[in-house]
Amino acid sequence: MNLLLLEESDFIAENRVILRDRRLRHMQEVHQAESGDELRVGLIEGDMGRGTLLHVEADYAELEVVLDTPPPTKLPVTLILALPRPKMLRRVLQSVASMGVARLILVNSYRVEKSFWQTPFLTPTSIREQLILGLEQARDTRLPSVQIQKRFKPFVEDELPTLVQGTRALVAHPGDWPTCPRYVEGAVTLAIGPEGGWIPYEVDKLRDQGFEAVQLGDRILRVETAVVALLARLF
Amino acid sequence: MNLLLLEESDFIAENRVILRDRRLRHMQEVHQAESGDELRVGLIEGDMGRGTLLHVEADYAELEVVLDTPPPTKLPVTLILALPRPKMLRRVLQSVASMGVARLILVNSYRVEKSFWQTPFLTPTSIREQLILGLEQARDTRLPSVQIQKRFKPFVEDELPTLVQGTRALVAHPGDWPTCPRYVEGAVTLAIGPEGGWIPYEVDKLRDQGFEAVQLGDRILRVETAVVALLARLF
Repeated sequence: MNLLLLEESDFIAENRVILRDRRLRHMQEVHQAESGDELRVGLIEGDMGRGTLLHVEADYAELEVVLDTPPPTKLPVTLILALPRPKMLRRVLQSVASMGVARLILVNSYRVEKSFWQTPFLTPTSIREQLILGLEQARDTRLPSVQIQKRFKPFVEDELPTLVQGTRALVAHPGDWPTCPRYVEGAVTLAIGPEGGWIPYEVDKLRDQGFEAVQLGDRILRVETAVVALLARLF
Repeated sequence: MNLLLLEESDFIAENRVILRDRRLRHMQEVHQAESGDELRVGLIEGDMGRGTLLHVEADYAELEVVLDTPPPTKLPVTLILALPRPKMLRRVLQSVASMGVARLILVNSYRVEKSFWQTPFLTPTSIREQLILGLEQARDTRLPSVQIQKRFKPFVEDELPTLVQGTRALVAHPGDWPTCPRYVEGAVTLAIGPEGGWIPYEVDKLRDQGFEAVQLGDRILRVETAVVALLARLF
């Protein structure tokens, strides 16, 4: 945790917060924080700054906070990601938040196992938890927006045309395609398939919507690795 | 597993192998492989090609293999990595192998907890297991070389001068440094610190050896994410 993220509901006065949950335990156990200590803090969807610990008791901590620094800029990217398996989903959500992705859309794909859609990690609360871990790591306060699209074809046909407007649309897929561009300017819509990749029908549907198919070389990367590698290369 | 990796000891004749271990179980359980099926195979440190399943029994499988394709090129990079915590170490070893790193050196650093050096995941057998998982994922046969350097100062003073010769040496560190270069030509020596980063003394020692300090922006990435992001940006 490189940034202690605060919720509006933590505030008891304009610049005072009370913490009681895992953030309190983290302060006690990892930072062994004491009265007078300073910590980096940020308000979710707001500014960042510093907090001074006024009291740390067994069951709560009180801080005085000054929020005076804007969070870092988001990457101008909408990431369309075939739903990964649950264990990987949690890590991907953290990476996506850490890397500064503005918008994530989890979609179905032929090679996504149906059972993946049943995972409790897809509840809004669980998604938000993982995103917050990513923001705390990266020192950011703004949550990526996350949407879930369980039906590939209606999403691609009805929603993608609007979504890709004004962006460079790329679909990452192994094969005989141009290599993924580097350091692009402007907004990107990036589609990354499941383990095993998109099926040809899906690549065709995305290309029909103006997506350029691009590849990352001979090496087949895990989805979570490919997400980071593609974002690092593009921005 | 996108490539079934074979050991020399699996061969019972020039182009015949017998498998009995986790690779057999993987074929049975994940691929539900049957006689006549073709699989991508590779010989560790050798060529890649195709294997045809001759028999699959409960306790062994026999394949006929043709190895006619060289593995992908390695990235010309020596990665010097402060030893990550054990759980992360395993994933980093897989990523490092998947991304094609030629050489990995795990070093001590002030912020590496002493207990991390006690992990059973640092045994040669355990390291090799994780690297092989990464190669199987990426479709490569050549293991990165891995060295362990438990003492930072003697390593930096006595071994680094030779190691960095003819390479561009970079130390990744948050702060007011130039941003990490993109798409470099030629060999790179890349040093990545522990969670919490190198201490200033360590950065100074590396800079004394000709390392350029570089940063990746305001966002603080987890070590495993930073490894992938830096490699994707550099190559």
